[in-house]
Amino acid sequence: MMLIESLLSIDKNSQVPVYLQITNGIISYIRQGILKPGSALPASRGLAASLNVHRKTVVAAYDELYAQSWVDVIARKGIYVANNLPDVTARPIDKTVQKHRLAGKTSFRVDDDRVNHRSVFKEMPEGNITFTEGFPDTRIAPVDLMVREYRRMAGYRFTHKYLMYGSEQGSENLRNELARFLGETRGLHVAADDILITKGVQMALYLCAQVLINKNDIVIVADPGYIGANEVFEQAGAKLALVPVDEHGIDIDAVETICAAKKVRMLYVVPHHHQPTTVTLSSERRMRLLELARKYQFAIIEDDYDFDFHYTCGPILPLISADYNGNVIYVGSFCKTIAPGIRIGFMVAPQNFLQQAIRLRRHIDRQGEHLLEEAMASLLKNGDIGRHLKKANKLYHERRDTLCSLLNRQMGHLIEFKIPDGGFAIWVKYLNGVDSALVSEKANELGLSIGAGTDYYYDRAFKHSFVRIGFASLNEKEMTEAVEIWKRAIIRAL
Amino acid sequence: MMLIESLLSIDKNSQVPVYLQITNGIISYIRQGILKPGSALPASRGLAASLNVHRKTVVAAYDELYAQSWVDVIARKGIYVANNLPDVTARPIDKTVQKHRLAGKTSFRVDDDRVNHRSVFKEMPEGNITFTEGFPDTRIAPVDLMVREYRRMAGYRFTHKYLMYGSEQGSENLRNELARFLGETRGLHVAADDILITKGVQMALYLCAQVLINKNDIVIVADPGYIGANEVFEQAGAKLALVPVDEHGIDIDAVETICAAKKVRMLYVVPHHHQPTTVTLSSERRMRLLELARKYQFAIIEDDYDFDFHYTCGPILPLISADYNGNVIYVGSFCKTIAPGIRIGFMVAPQNFLQQAIRLRRHIDRQGEHLLEEAMASLLKNGDIGRHLKKANKLYHERRDTLCSLLNRQMGHLIEFKIPDGGFAIWVKYLNGVDSALVSEKANELGLSIGAGTDYYYDRAFKHSFVRIGFASLNEKEMTEAVEIWKRAIIRAL
Repeated sequence: MMLIESLLSIDKNSQVPVYLQITNGIISYIRQGILKPGSALPASRGLAASLNVHRKTVVAAYDELYAQSWVDVIARKGIYVANNLPDVTARPIDKTVQKHRLAGKTSFRVDDDRVNHRSVFKEMPEGNITFTEGFPDTRIAPVDLMVREYRRMAGYRFTHKYLMYGSEQGSENLRNELARFLGETRGLHVAADDILITKGVQMALYLCAQVLINKNDIVIVADPGYIGANEVFEQAGAKLALVPVDEHGIDIDAVETICAAKKVRMLYVVPHHHQPTTVTLSSERRMRLLELARKYQFAIIEDDYDFDFHYTCGPILPLISADYNGNVIYVGSFCKTIAPGIRIGFMVAPQNFLQQAIRLRRHIDRQGEHLLEEAMASLLKNGDIGRHLKKANKLYHERRDTLCSLLNRQMGHLIEFKIPDGGFAIWVKYLNGVDSALVSEKANELGLSIGAGTDYYYDRAFKHSFVRIGFASLNEKEMTEAVEIWKRAIIRAL
Repeated sequence: MMLIESLLSIDKNSQVPVYLQITNGIISYIRQGILKPGSALPASRGLAASLNVHRKTVVAAYDELYAQSWVDVIARKGIYVANNLPDVTARPIDKTVQKHRLAGKTSFRVDDDRVNHRSVFKEMPEGNITFTEGFPDTRIAPVDLMVREYRRMAGYRFTHKYLMYGSEQGSENLRNELARFLGETRGLHVAADDILITKGVQMALYLCAQVLINKNDIVIVADPGYIGANEVFEQAGAKLALVPVDEHGIDIDAVETICAAKKVRMLYVVPHHHQPTTVTLSSERRMRLLELARKYQFAIIEDDYDFDFHYTCGPILPLISADYNGNVIYVGSFCKTIAPGIRIGFMVAPQNFLQQAIRLRRHIDRQGEHLLEEAMASLLKNGDIGRHLKKANKLYHERRDTLCSLLNRQMGHLIEFKIPDGGFAIWVKYLNGVDSALVSEKANELGLSIGAGTDYYYDRAFKHSFVRIGFASLNEKEMTEAVEIWKRAIIRAL
C-alpha cells in the first residue's frame, strides 16, 4: 500500500477547512481505486504527525468519512475503507440505448402563442449607466439585517418547524405583523386571516386574474398603464377596456361610460402613483370610483406597491380604507422596500375571494419561503423596516430633488415634467415631438440605458414623446453623468 | 426644557444596541411632543457623560436620528429637533367616511368552487408523534450552510446585482451547476438553457398543466397516485384516465388500451418510487412507455422528486435519459434534499415547451428568489449538497432498516409490507381488512398522527387497508414509541 500521508497535500491558506481537504483527498483516492475497499487507514495520531496538523483535525476528517459511509470503524482494530462503497451507480434502462441527448423540440404539440409575452426580462448592457423605470437602489438594501435574522433562526431549535411544509396563506407571524403595519401606516383594520402572503405584487395580480376572469370578461385598465398587469389579465381571457389618465388620475367619466354600456368584471388601478405617469388619483375621483364599483358590482384591484415612499405631503389613504361593500382587493409589496429580488408581496381581500386565491396559490407553488417570511416578520416587529423606510425616504427625497434641479438647469428647453410627490420616478415629456424610442437608441450608443417608451401604451406601435425616469437608484455623480449623456442623445434625436 | 438625560434610560444588558436605545428614546419623546420641533439636543460629550456611555455611542445615535430626518444639524451651532418631522401622516380620502372595516364578503360575484381543493394544509396536533407520509428530517437540514452562503454574499459588492430583477428562467449559475449535477447523478447531458428553476415540483406541474392542457384533454394518471398532481391537472380542465399500479409500477397494458381508444394529451408518472406505493417502474415497462408516447404523441411528465435517495441498489436512470424524440418533461426538486420549506425545484424540457413555461412563470411571480438560487448554486458547486446527500442517505438507510425490523418483530401478524429500495416511506397493508381511516382515528386518540389513507385513491370514499409510513423523519426512540402506539391503535380498530 502506498503511504497515504505522501498522497495528501494540505493547503493551510485555502478557504476549504483542512479536515475537509483530508476528507476529499481520501475520497478521491478511494474513487480512483488507489485505496481499495477493506484496506486500513493510518491511525489518526500518526497521520496527524506526518501531515503536521492537530490530531483533532484528522479525527474530524475520519468522522466525516464515516458519516458519508466511505469507511468502516472496527472497534479496537481501526478504520478501514468500506467494503460497500456509497457511490451507488445508476443503472441504464436498457444497455442498447444511445447516449442521451435532449431533443430540441417536443414530439407532442405545443402552441407557440399559448402564453403572451410582450414584456420579457432584458439584461442591461454591461458598463452602461442606467435610468431605470423606477427601482430602489439595491446598494442600500438591508441585506445585512436579513442575514442577521437568518443567522438567529439557524441557531434556534424551533427553526426546523419553519423548514417543513406550512400554511399556503403564509407565515402567521408575518401576517400578524403586517396587519399591525397596515394599521399604523394605512389606517386599515384587518386581521392576519384577511391577508395572503404572495411572491410580490405579480403573484397577487395573477391570482386575481385567474380566480375572477372568464373568457371575454371586461377589465378596465388605464392607458398608458402597467403592461405587466395587462398581460396577466389578457392571459386569463379578459378583454381590456382602456381609459385615459390626466393629472388627477384615471378618467372616471370614461369608466362610467363603459359601465353603462357593458358588464364590467374588474378595474385595475394604481391610485397612489399611477404607473407610468406618477399622478395621484384625487379624493373626489376615489369616492366616485368606489360608488361606481358598488353600483355596477365590479372588483377594484388596487395596486399600492409604493405607498411607503412619499416625500412632500402625506399620501391619500388607499381606496380600501373607504370600502365598506367589499369591492376592493388591495395588493402591495416589500419588493421595493427591501429589494426587487426579495419576493414578498401581499393581498388583503374579503374572505370568500381570499379562500379561492389561497387554494389556487397551493396549486401553483404550495407555499412561500417560510424562513424568508419569518425573517420579514421579525424585521417588521423590531422596527427595522420602519427605520429602513425612513432612511430610504430621506435619501430618495434628496435624489428626487437633485435630479429635478439638474433637469431644470440643464434640460429645461428640451423636456417638461412635474415633480412627483413620492415614488421612484419622474414622468418626462420630450418637447418638439421628439420620439422616445429614438432617444433611447441614441442614448444607448453613448453609454446610457434609458426607456424606449414602448411599454407604456397598449398600442406598442404608437409613437410618443414620454419616458419614465427613475431617480432612486443613482447617486449624484451618476445622475450628473447620466443627464449629460441623455442631453446629447436628445439633441441627436431632434 | 426637561433634561433629556433624565428621560432616557439605558439597559446595557438588552439585545438592542445602546445607540438604538438612545435613538428610539429620543424619537419617542419627539413623537409625544415632549421634545418640540426646533429645540436643541445636548452636545454629545455632555449627554455621554450623564448617561455613562462612550461619546461615540451618542454620536452614532445622533447620526441615526439625522439619517431618519428627526433632527437637523446646524454647522457650528448644534443639533436641533427637525422642524419638518418625517412622520408624514396619511390623509383620509374623505373626512366623512366611517372607520374602516374590511367587508366579510365581496359585492362582486366569486364562484366558491372556482378552484378545487381536495387537499389542504393541516396543522399537526401539538404534542403528537407523527408518521409523516414521507418527509425528510428537517432537524438535519443544512441550514447552517445556507446561512453561511447568505453571509458570504451579504459581504460581496456584486450581491446588489442579485437583488435586482433577474431572469425568469432562474439564476444562470444555478442552472449551470444543476446541469453538471444532473449529468453526474443521472447521466443527462443538458445545458443551462434546457432548465427552468421552479418553486418545487409543484410549480413545475402547474406550468405543465397550464401550458399543455385544454378543456377535456385526457391525462393518464396512476390510481392510487399523487393527489397534488391530479388536482393541478383537473384545475386546468383535464379529464383524468386512471390506470392501476402493481409491483412493477403503472400498468402499461392499461395505458395502451386508453391510447388506442382516445387521444391522450399527457401521462404523469413517478417512475423512481411511485407515490404512494414506492414501487419502481421496471426497465421493460419504461421502454414500452416511451414507445407508446412516441407512437401516440403524448407528453410524459416524469416526476423524479426523490431520485437522490436510494439505499439498496442503484436506481434505474430516469425515462428522459432514454428519450430521443422529445416526449419527456423531467421535473425534480431540492425540497427533499434541503427541506420542504426551501422551495427549489426544476424542469428539463425541449426548447419549444420550455419557452412557453418560462413565459407563464413570468406572469405568475416574475422570478424566483435570486439570493436563494445563488446560495444553492454555491452549495452544489463546492460539493456541500453531495456531502449532505451522502450523510442523509446513510442516516435514512439506517432508519429504514430500524423501522422495518421493528415492524417485523412487533407487528408481523397485523401488517404486510415490502422493504423499499430508497425514498422516505414504506407502503403498508393492514391485514384482516382493517380500515386505514379507522386506525388513523384510533391512533390520533392515543397521541400518534398517521395517514388516514383518504388521499391515495381517486375515489375518496373507497375504503381500503393501505397506509404510507415515513421513516426518515423519526429517530429510533421516536419510532419505537410510534410503533407501540400504532400497534395499540390497530388492535382497537380490529
